Amino acid sequence: MNEKSLIKLIKSTLNSGYIGDDCAYLEDLGIVVTQDSLVEDVHFKRDLITPFQLGYKTVMVNISDICASGAEPKYMTISLSLPDTVDENFVKDFYEGAKKASKDVKIAGGDLTGSDKIYISAAAIGSDDGRKISSRANAKAGYKLIVSGEHGNSAYGLCLLLENNVTPTERINNKFISAHLMPAAQREFSKAIAENIKDDYAMMDTSDGLADALIQIAQASGVRLEIDTSKIPHDPVVDIDTVLYGGEDYQLVAAVPEYMLKNLNAYTIIGDVNTGNTGLVIDGEFYTDIDSKLYKHFKE
Amino acid sequence: MNEKSLIKLIKSTLNSGYIGDDCAYLEDLGIVVTQDSLVEDVHFKRDLITPFQLGYKTVMVNISDICASGAEPKYMTISLSLPDTVDENFVKDFYEGAKKASKDVKIAGGDLTGSDKIYISAAAIGSDDGRKISSRANAKAGYKLIVSGEHGNSAYGLCLLLENNVTPTERINNKFISAHLMPAAQREFSKAIAENIKDDYAMMDTSDGLADALIQIAQASGVRLEIDTSKIPHDPVVDIDTVLYGGEDYQLVAAVPEYMLKNLNAYTIIGDVNTGNTGLVIDGEFYTDIDSKLYKHFKE
Repeated sequence: MNEKSLIKLIKSTLNSGYIGDDCAYLEDLGIVVTQDSLVEDVHFKRDLITPFQLGYKTVMVNISDICASGAEPKYMTISLSLPDTVDENFVKDFYEGAKKASKDVKIAGGDLTGSDKIYISAAAIGSDDGRKISSRANAKAGYKLIVSGEHGNSAYGLCLLLENNVTPTERINNKFISAHLMPAAQREFSKAIAENIKDDYAMMDTSDGLADALIQIAQASGVRLEIDTSKIPHDPVVDIDTVLYGGEDYQLVAAVPEYMLKNLNAYTIIGDVNTGNTGLVIDGEFYTDIDSKLYKHFKE
Repeated sequence: MNEKSLIKLIKSTLNSGYIGDDCAYLEDLGIVVTQDSLVEDVHFKRDLITPFQLGYKTVMVNISDICASGAEPKYMTISLSLPDTVDENFVKDFYEGAKKASKDVKIAGGDLTGSDKIYISAAAIGSDDGRKISSRANAKAGYKLIVSGEHGNSAYGLCLLLENNVTPTERINNKFISAHLMPAAQREFSKAIAENIKDDYAMMDTSDGLADALIQIAQASGVRLEIDTSKIPHDPVVDIDTVLYGGEDYQLVAAVPEYMLKNLNAYTIIGDVNTGNTGLVIDGEFYTDIDSKLYKHFKE
């Protein structure tokens, strides 16, 4: 069974209306909450990422989910499970990285246990104060599809890392490797939309790839999304398959009414939300599913 | 480095005032948050607990932390990392157990990833609405030390399980094994205190054992706790070392002013908070530390 089938099974077992978005919106408490795990040899390899970068990425991955909801990131908890082979320098460097990434988001607690491999699970909490919260089910015909930043850099950076001839300096200075190891959550893009929009809207991060996020929005909203790949911001060295299907960029993609674009500084329109069969039209070609093209982790 | 030294290191790295209690109190949002992980072969063995029981226990362990804070448990997220050898029946049974334990607490999301062993991390959120939140630093001389329920049953149950001659029926009907596999968070005890108390107070759950909770309260509050072991509720077959140092009962221990005991139905006074050297006096013997006597997990 794949992840999506299992999530369906969990939803039906719990009979929960919450599971589906990057964050759960707990309206009575005025907060959103998310939890994401990073597992050694599934999501990262110890020799390809420093403890500092791992702490940094753990925080950004979770803050990115909060940003996808439109909420203001406020607090995090981090649970670390560590093998005996990991010493206190790992823990110190990990939390230095976490602190660097979290800025004004407070790391308020967590848990520390033993394990065979490094398991990291973090939860993040955001506030809806003055913000309108997104849902991937809220895309409407007539809306514009917009994205933040460049796409495909992280997957391209992972390829460079796996090629194994990367010097330590390149790991720090190379824009693609940096995009993979130390991604940046799109807090300003999220804030500009969530503070200014009056209507329901859809927003997701591109943790599983841009095309996957678009398909999720199309399916949840029951709409037809049409995109023009020539409009997607990307570095010229990155091919369009990596731009569409490479994961872990932690950019944002949103479906919003056109009136609110005037409130945004940095965005790119990549397509439109239309009526018609539910799915994603990429340069005129219609897809209801892109599972076969999805970015794969090291092992799955 | 042991867990406590590492937590000190994390606190100093983050310069965080939050880390220390079972829950972090996020006053501006009116909530408390906690995160706890259960790792295969560290906290549980797959052949000694069913998936249903594991889901049940995951929820109770986290709700217990919320109860220790005095907050009302409201929401949870659960992150599951599973090996390929685990099928959809495991996931279904796990969430059936989680649902059974959570009752009105809503499971609002989480994450699902691959891994080598089963790794579970859950976060729980509670509301401070109408409740006074505890801190282990709030015990004051003159307060009474009170506990909920029986102590030592879970550790005794674990011994029975490890003896390996337990039939499936005994696993369900045996009170000690049930206390270990399907503990009950003390929601009523917590609520009765938190809704009725006016002063600051200390409360912890006994996840790491009763004596450990008392030492933590003594150290954080800078007080001398004195207990009489003959007063601690326990089954006659459980020896006093297991009562004091056995973990995972998920009972509550609190230091509260005497005036508020009239609002409680079910509690036992086991001692007093006094001035004097910081530490724990057990039947007249003074301890500043009980690390050598602590309950050990399967591997640590």
